[in-house]
Amino acid sequence: MTDFDATRRAFHLPEGVTYLDGNSLGPMPRVAADRVAAMMSDEWSQMLITGWNRAGWYRQPRDVGDRIARLIGAGAGQVVMGDTLSIKVFQALSAALAMRPDRRVILSDSGNFPSDLYVAEGVARAMGATLRVVAPEDVAAAIGDDIAVLMLTEVDYRTGRRHDMADLTARAHRAGALTVWDLAHSAGAVDLDLIGADADFAVGCTYKYLNGGPGAPAFIWTRPDLTDAAQPILQGWMGHERPFAFDASYAPAPGIERMRVGTPPVIALAVLDAALDVWDGVSMADLRARSILLTEAFIAGVEAECPGLVLHSPRDPSLRGSQVGFRHPQAYAVMQALIAEGVIGDFRAPDVLRFGFAPLYNDMDDVARAVAVLARILRDGSWDRPDFHHRAAVT
Amino acid sequence: MTDFDATRRAFHLPEGVTYLDGNSLGPMPRVAADRVAAMMSDEWSQMLITGWNRAGWYRQPRDVGDRIARLIGAGAGQVVMGDTLSIKVFQALSAALAMRPDRRVILSDSGNFPSDLYVAEGVARAMGATLRVVAPEDVAAAIGDDIAVLMLTEVDYRTGRRHDMADLTARAHRAGALTVWDLAHSAGAVDLDLIGADADFAVGCTYKYLNGGPGAPAFIWTRPDLTDAAQPILQGWMGHERPFAFDASYAPAPGIERMRVGTPPVIALAVLDAALDVWDGVSMADLRARSILLTEAFIAGVEAECPGLVLHSPRDPSLRGSQVGFRHPQAYAVMQALIAEGVIGDFRAPDVLRFGFAPLYNDMDDVARAVAVLARILRDGSWDRPDFHHRAAVT
Repeated sequence: MTDFDATRRAFHLPEGVTYLDGNSLGPMPRVAADRVAAMMSDEWSQMLITGWNRAGWYRQPRDVGDRIARLIGAGAGQVVMGDTLSIKVFQALSAALAMRPDRRVILSDSGNFPSDLYVAEGVARAMGATLRVVAPEDVAAAIGDDIAVLMLTEVDYRTGRRHDMADLTARAHRAGALTVWDLAHSAGAVDLDLIGADADFAVGCTYKYLNGGPGAPAFIWTRPDLTDAAQPILQGWMGHERPFAFDASYAPAPGIERMRVGTPPVIALAVLDAALDVWDGVSMADLRARSILLTEAFIAGVEAECPGLVLHSPRDPSLRGSQVGFRHPQAYAVMQALIAEGVIGDFRAPDVLRFGFAPLYNDMDDVARAVAVLARILRDGSWDRPDFHHRAAVT
Repeated sequence: MTDFDATRRAFHLPEGVTYLDGNSLGPMPRVAADRVAAMMSDEWSQMLITGWNRAGWYRQPRDVGDRIARLIGAGAGQVVMGDTLSIKVFQALSAALAMRPDRRVILSDSGNFPSDLYVAEGVARAMGATLRVVAPEDVAAAIGDDIAVLMLTEVDYRTGRRHDMADLTARAHRAGALTVWDLAHSAGAVDLDLIGADADFAVGCTYKYLNGGPGAPAFIWTRPDLTDAAQPILQGWMGHERPFAFDASYAPAPGIERMRVGTPPVIALAVLDAALDVWDGVSMADLRARSILLTEAFIAGVEAECPGLVLHSPRDPSLRGSQVGFRHPQAYAVMQALIAEGVIGDFRAPDVLRFGFAPLYNDMDDVARAVAVLARILRDGSWDRPDFHHRAAVT
C-alpha cells in the first residue's frame, strides 16, 4: 500500500491552508528546494560547460521522461521532456496530421483547454486543414472517415469529465484517424494506460499534479511503432540524429528524441526531477482509489451541507478525473471568500467553483475543512460582505 | 566608466579556471543562487497559485524582456521571453515568411548555426518555401527580388565573423525582403542597435553572454511597426489578447506579447532576472571596447607565442564578435590538454580551437594565462601525451 501520509509530508504546505488548486499549480515538494540549490552550486557553478556530460544535462529530457512514463502507462525510452504543453500539442498535432495527407479535418471538443484549440487553429491554417469542434458528448458520433486527427484533453479542465481514451481511440482507429491526447489534468491525477489504450500521441504538463513548479517543462509520448514515422515540423538541433556533428541538414533522431527541439531547460528539469522523487513507491491504482475516495467524500459533504451548489462534474467517479466543480450564481465571490479563509480552489467563468484533489497531499481532513468552511460561508452569506473581497484581493 | 572589476567579482568562477567558453554557457552570477532559493521559498512554496499575480510571474516574460531590450538596442515593451531559441527562430521566420506571400525563398548562409537552418528547413517545408544557403561572403550579392526573408546569425558561432546588420538589412529592404537576425553570439557580447539597423525580427538566447544558466529562456523582438501584423503560427494562450477569458478562438494580443505561447518558465526566468542584475550600470560601448581589447591582445599573444596556430577569425575587430578561433591540425587534442590545465575553451570540427571572451568577467590576466598555457602545451607537445587525454575525459 502506498504511504500517503509520507507523500503528504513531502510537500511544503503553508500553515492554515487547505490547498485544492493543485490542478492549476502543485505545491513545492520539500526536496525541490535543496535539489535546485545543489544544481546551482555543484553543477552549473562548478562544472560550467562540462555539466552537459558530467552532470547528465544532455540526457535529462530522456531520464526525466522515463520517470514520467511509469505514471502514464508508457514504457521507458518513449517520453521526452521540453518546451511547454502548447508547443508539444503543436508537435503532436502537426506530426499526426502529416501522417494522414489524404484527410484535412482535426476533430476536437468544446471541453478542450482553449490553448489546445488555439494551437490547432494555427496548425490547421498552416497545413490547409479544418478544425471541427463538437460538444464532449458528441465526440464519438462525430468520428467519421474524413477525420485525420482526433485531438482531446482526457480530463476537462472545468468539469473534470473524463473521456474514455481506449474507446474513443478504437473508434478513431476504425475510422482511419490518429489520436492526440492531452493529459494536462490526467498525469498524476488518474491511472493512465497509454499503451493499453493504443493511443497514438500524448502530451502533458508537469506543473499540476506532478508538482514540477510554475512553468515546468512539458512531455510528449508517441506510440513506439509510430515514432520513427513522425516527422517533426519544429526541427531543432537537439532532435537531430547527430546534434554535435553540426550537419547542414536536418535528419531526425531515431525514437522519441526527434521531438526534442532546442537546448533543454536544465534548471527547471532539475526541479521537476526532484518533484518526481515523491512518486517513487506510489501505486497509480492506489492513487486512483484515493482520488475517488476524496472526491466522493467532498461531493457527499457539499451536497449534504451546502444547499444552493449544483454539481458540475460527472457523478459517476469512473467518468471523472480528480477534480470537482460546483456551480453557484455568485461563484466568484464565494471562491474569494473561501480563499480568504485559507481554502484555495479556483473560479472558472461563468459560475464554477473548481476544487482539485491531489491524492499525494490532500487528505480527508482537507475535505472536511473545505466542506465546513464552504457551508459556513454560504450559511452566513459572508461571501457577500465587502471585507472578504478586500481580504481576497491581497491573498 | 563601467566597473569591470565589480562585474567580474559578481560571478562564481571555479578556482584555477580560466573560462573562455562563456559563448557556450556563461558562468553563474553569485546572485542567481540566492534568487532562485528565494523564489522557491518565498514565492512558489508560500504563494502557490497566487504567485502568478502577487509575485508577478505572469508579467515576467515582459519584465525580463525589458531588461534585455536595453542590451540589444531595442525599446521597452518590445521584447518578450520564453521557449528556446529554436522555437523563437521558428516564430520569427514563419511570421516573416507569411508577410511576403508572393515570395517563397528564405536566404541564409553556411555560417549560420545548424539549428537555425534545421528550423528553416521545417518552416520551408510547411509553408511551401525554399531555403537557399550561400557562403557568408556571398550574402550581399544573393539578396535578389525573389527573397522573402533574409535569416542570419549576426556573429558566426565558429569564426566569430560579424555581419553588418544595418547594411544587409538595408539591402534586404531595397529588395523587398524582411530580415530575421539571430543574436545568439551577439547579445551581451557586442554593441547592438536593432532600432538603428532597422531590423525586422530578432531572436536570441540568454545562456551564453547573458549568463542565464543552462537552457535559459530565449527572447524575441519585432520592429514595433511590424509587430501587430506578425501572425503567430504557434498560437498559444499566453499570446492571446485575453488569455483568461478562455475564448474558444485565438486572437493575438496587441504588441510583442503575441509571441508568447505557453506558460512561462518561471523558475528559469527568476534565475535569468538575477543574472541581468550584473548588467545594471554596464555601458555597452564600454563592453565592446573591452571585448576588442581582450580579443586583440589574445590574437597578438597567440601569434607571437604559438607558432602553428592559424587565425580563423577576422583580423579586423570591427568584423568580429567577442570570440576568436584558431586552427590547428590537432585542435581536438590541444583543446583537451588546455582544459586539463584549467583553460576552458572549446573545439569545433574539424580543426578549430574556439575562445570566447566575455568582458563582464574575463580580463587581461585570463588572456595572459591562456596564451602562456597554450604556448607551453604546443612547445612541449604535451597535447600528444595520453595522460592528458585521460585527464581531459574526466573534466
